[in-house]
Order: sequence, then structure tokens, then C-alpha cells
Amino acid sequence: MRICVLAGGVGGARFLLGARRLLGLDEVAARADSPHQIDAVVNVGDDAWMHGVRICPDLDTCMYTLGGGIDPDRGWGHAGETWNARDELAAYGVQPDWFGLGDKDLATHLVRTQMLGAGYRLTDVTEALSTRWAPGVRLLPVTDERCETHVVVNDSPADAANAAASPADAARSGAEEETPAGPRAIHFQEWWVKHKAQLPASGFVNIGADQARPTPEVLEAIENADVVVVAPSNPVVSVGAILAVPGIRAALRSTSAPVVGISPVIGGAVLRGMADACLTAIGVETDALAVARHYGARSGTGLLDGWLVAPGDGPGSPAAGSDVSPAAIDGVKVAEAPLLMSDPDATAEMLIAALRLVGLEAPGAAGHAGTSGEPGAAR
Amino acid sequence: MRICVLAGGVGGARFLLGARRLLGLDEVAARADSPHQIDAVVNVGDDAWMHGVRICPDLDTCMYTLGGGIDPDRGWGHAGETWNARDELAAYGVQPDWFGLGDKDLATHLVRTQMLGAGYRLTDVTEALSTRWAPGVRLLPVTDERCETHVVVNDSPADAANAAASPADAARSGAEEETPAGPRAIHFQEWWVKHKAQLPASGFVNIGADQARPTPEVLEAIENADVVVVAPSNPVVSVGAILAVPGIRAALRSTSAPVVGISPVIGGAVLRGMADACLTAIGVETDALAVARHYGARSGTGLLDGWLVAPGDGPGSPAAGSDVSPAAIDGVKVAEAPLLMSDPDATAEMLIAALRLVGLEAPGAAGHAGTSGEPGAAR
Repeated sequence: MRICVLAGGVGGARFLLGARRLLGLDEVAARADSPHQIDAVVNVGDDAWMHGVRICPDLDTCMYTLGGGIDPDRGWGHAGETWNARDELAAYGVQPDWFGLGDKDLATHLVRTQMLGAGYRLTDVTEALSTRWAPGVRLLPVTDERCETHVVVNDSPADAANAAASPADAARSGAEEETPAGPRAIHFQEWWVKHKAQLPASGFVNIGADQARPTPEVLEAIENADVVVVAPSNPVVSVGAILAVPGIRAALRSTSAPVVGISPVIGGAVLRGMADACLTAIGVETDALAVARHYGARSGTGLLDGWLVAPGDGPGSPAAGSDVSPAAIDGVKVAEAPLLMSDPDATAEMLIAALRLVGLEAPGAAGHAGTSGEPGAAR
Repeated sequence: MRICVLAGGVGGARFLLGARRLLGLDEVAARADSPHQIDAVVNVGDDAWMHGVRICPDLDTCMYTLGGGIDPDRGWGHAGETWNARDELAAYGVQPDWFGLGDKDLATHLVRTQMLGAGYRLTDVTEALSTRWAPGVRLLPVTDERCETHVVVNDSPADAANAAASPADAARSGAEEETPAGPRAIHFQEWWVKHKAQLPASGFVNIGADQARPTPEVLEAIENADVVVVAPSNPVVSVGAILAVPGIRAALRSTSAPVVGISPVIGGAVLRGMADACLTAIGVETDALAVARHYGARSGTGLLDGWLVAPGDGPGSPAAGSDVSPAAIDGVKVAEAPLLMSDPDATAEMLIAALRLVGLEAPGAAGHAGTSGEPGAAR
């Protein structure tokens, strides 16, 4: 079975751990003879230049997670990371002072920056870096071009000061108060890390999207997949940034593989990150079915054939205090299943449910599907 | 008093600590009103690109030493340094694997690399970095152009294997054994760090010297100095690489300031580094007076007016078992004084002796010159 996954960072990486478990690709020795393959089409909208090195947070989070090097508590960056370079950069007073490059992490960025400078594609660089980490999943940046997510903010000087991370930040950012208020676009990382997604956003723009195109590897992975799975990643700045690359939507609509998504929203809340702030910014309710409607049905103008939600989040479950069922989504089969990715086995069960929803049986799924993973009935 | 010092790394930095002490420039508060100034013309021959960042070992050694951040045991790099990025780079298997970039040190290189990429001169970059370290000495790269020392080696495959740092290196460098033997030039850092200066060298070339020129700041510092001091740095790859920049010798010969050098050789041995290997490579004996003859007299075609050697190393002291005095050096006044730079006070005393040798009295020297620092009689 070939599974193509559209993935962001932390959520995408955890999902890939489950997919790898399901297909029996955890062990390096098992991979060479396996008939199975996982291609991860990874978001590059968060990528940025910091202190002269190219950082690719989602690719690295997937690579470190699958390679066993991730910090298990933070969910990003290296286990046992140190921050001496960051502290020294701060001592020099150079900007940005709100983005912490870990010492171990820096090595990845140095290798990548050198290879990019030598003319290698990001796809090739990622493959080279993966040689060491042996993720068991082919990590494919959605594009080799720069296509970076910027956030449209319309901050008044007071907002800017309030959104600063600390009183000390506010004091230091006195210069910003001289900047006239008005709409402006800032890099996603600045909004996400510096402002902690608290600066009111009126939208997102994908800088470079007009020039970007999917890589041949990505188009091949989508075309030849047995199933395309939209991981429970941020629908706006992770999956949305993947979809913003011209050609991706067309590939998803033309592949013979079914496309099934897994909700990142459970019970009206997001489990990781600050996806609710992103959904709010684009006028989408933080609700499992609202996200599915945002993605749309492949039979219409969207991309989904199926949508897996948490128990109680399906269209048959009216909200407490209401007797009106949320509208079902035309053309999208919806099922309920536990969506907690607490470990790779639980995530594998979730994926089994997603596959069944679009009429596929996972390889060896009989041995995996316990009663706890029984999906709700497809609707 | 304005003192212009030609300086390399560890030895140059320690010498500058003494010069700063002598001129009362240790304390930041004392500097603004001081009539004194120290300009250090620093070697850039060791500079290199490593993992995509620009390293300037001698500038950084001077900067960290004078800024109080140097590792006191190694004499180079940061106190409290960690090596996580280096270890990660090794895990990626990227070359060079024999040069260790410290995590703290990396911050300096990132800032420098970004500034150079933005078009700043190395002189400006060094000034910007020095804002933080407040060295109390103006650190001036001798040139803003690349002028890098390469070492001419003529290694047989067996030499290359033997010179490898470890058996594991030798095993990994199997590819090198396919390389036909013959003269080739390798970067100074490769010779110095990887081969520990043990690979027989037949000479040094200054790559880029034909295009390099001294900076205006360096020419001004030499021209307007009250004295130029050649620090007890490596005569070949530190001072020699400074002299290799076209225009430096002419500036030293035309300045009205006397030029006095301090021997890096004491009792026929070098105290730091592997300068003896460098001297041997260019056919100069590891001997205090031989080095002075190598520099030459300013009244002839060289650069020295005076030369300070350790007690017993002067021309009046025949070698043990010999009754033949080494020849004095025409046109160069030679004196003996303790040359150990064990602390800034001892180094200041040494500088007082050097100044006296060329007819200058150090400011406030009466308060410094104790009996222990009494120089030998000028000859």
C-alpha cells in the first residue's frame, strides 16, 4: 500500500509515526523488502531565513520525530538540546531575538544552507539529511520554491505593545510605537513565535505561491498513492499552505486515490498549537465539520472523500442544549473514531478507521483493530 | 601614546592584554578620556569558510581574550563552550569533520557571515562584533579581502594516512590513498588542525595576496603610530601572513614610528603553537636571532629597528659548549628581557623593555618597571 500524507509539523509527525507503525515500517531492517511506502508531502510555509540559515520547521519536526531525535516534551526540536548559540546571538543584540535556534538544530540548518547554496533542491537536501535519520517515510517538501506563509495583521501601536511577549519586550519595542498602524504582513514565524498568535490576524498570504510549483516527486506521490490522507495538522497554515501551491489541488482532484482527512479539531477545540486563532482569522469556526466544509468535497470543488472526526463530533450529534443536528457534508463520508494520537498504536488504529471510511482495508489491519479502535458507522 | 601591534591569535591576544594594561585601558570607564590608543593589525590568513560560515580565528581569539570570554585553558574559543552542533555535523557525516565549531562560537560566525553577505567589510563586521566585547583595543583585520594561508605539502599516500588524526580517520580517508602523491596546497587550517602541522610542508602561499590590499584603517594606524610592535606571534603564518598583504611592508618602512619586535622563540623553542614547524618549512632556524634576521632590519630591506629576546638569547650569549657568539644583526638593536606573558603585568613589563629599546618611555612606566622587568642593556 502506498499512503500519501499531507502533513505539517507536530501533528503531522505524530500521525506519520502511526502510519509507519501500521505499515510495519518502524524497523529499518523491515523496510527494504516491504511492499508498502509512505510519502509525506510536508508544508514549507513556515520555512524562514534566521541568522543566515534556512530553517524548515515542519520538515525537521517530521524528520527528528521519525528519526527518534525529537524532544518528547516540546514536540519540536532536539532531545537534549542546548541554547548557547541563541544566548550568544542575544548577547550580540542581533535580530530576530525571538526565535531560538538550538545548538544541535543549527547543524541541520548549516548543512541545509550549504547544500541549498550549492544548488541542490530542498527535496534533495531533505533526502540527504534523512539518510542520517532514516525516518522510514519519504519526506517531500511540497515545493522546492520559497512559498512562505505571511500573516496580515492590522495592529495599532497599543496592540503591538500588548502582544509583546513580556514587559521587557514592550519596553524594547518602543521603536515600533513610532510605526503608523495599518495592515501589514509579517512572516508566520514572527506571528506564531514572537506574538504567540495573539496579534489579531485578518488573513494569510502565501508569499511566492505565484512562482511555486509542486515537485515532480510530490505529484508522483499523489498520483500513484492508494490513498491520500490529510493529517490532523493545522488546516490553515499547514495543510492550507500545502494547498496554496498551485497544482496541488488539481493533483488531489485528479488522482484515482481517495482522499480522506482527519480532524484536528476535537470537541470544538484544537489539541495542539494555536490552530483556532488561524481558523478564526479566515472566518472558519473551530469545529470538526466546519473544517471539513472548508476543505470541501472532492465531488464538488474541494478535496475530501472522507472525514474522520472524534466521537460526538459527527453530524448526528447535536450540540448540548440544541436539538438541531449540524448539517452533513454533501459528498464527504464522515465517521467517528478516537482521534487521540497518544502513541503510534493508537494513531495506527485511527488510520485504520480513516482507510475503512474510504473503502480500504489496512494491510494486516485485522491484527491491529481492537474494539477500542472500532470506527463509528460511516454516514 | 598610540601603539600599533601586528598580532596573530593566542600570542597576539596575550600581548594585547599587556599593552592594554600598560596604557591603562583595562577599564571601560577609563577609555573615553584616555590619550592612549592601541590598534591591532590582525592576521586573517587563518580565516576560512567552514560549514558555510566565515571563521576568523585570530580576530576572534583577540576579541574573546580582550573581552574576557576566552577559554583560559585552551587559549582559544569560548569559556564554557559546548560542542553539540559539531557533534551533530559529525553525525551527518559532512566535511570538514576535523574542525570543531563551538556552539557559542557559532553565533559570532553567524553574525559575521550575515553581515559579510550584506556587503559589510570585515573591518566593519569586526567593529560591530567588538561593540559587545569592548576589547579596549581597535581590532583591525589587515585586509578586507580574502588572503588565506595555504600550505604546500608533498605528501605520499602513506604520509596522508599516517598524518590522519586517528585510525578511524585513516580508515575513512581511504579515498585519499587513491590520490596521486605530489605537491599540493591545502588550507592552513587543514594542515594545522587536521594534520597538527606534522605533515611535512615545503612552503606557504598566500592565496589572494595578489588582489589584497591593506585597509585604510590599517595604513592610518601604522602611519600615525608612535611605535609599531611586532607581537611574539608565529613569524610565518601570523606575522608573515600580515606582511604578505601588498602595501604592509611599504607602510612599515615609511612610518616615522620605530618598529620593534618581540621574539616568539625562547631558548631555541616556541612557547605556543607549532611555529617551529612553520619556521622549518621556510628554512629558518627556531632561534630568536634567526627570526630577527628573517624579518630583517628596517635600515636594510626589512622591517625591524629593535628586537627583544629572552635572557640568554642575545648575540652576546654563545651557545653552551661553544665560544662563538652568534652574529649580531646589522641595524637592529637587540635587548634581553623576560618574555613570559604569564599575566598582563608581566607582559606590560616586557613591552616597557621593548619601548625603551627603541628610545621610548611608556606612559607611567616608572610605576610599572620593577627590578624584575629591567631590560638587558641594548646592544
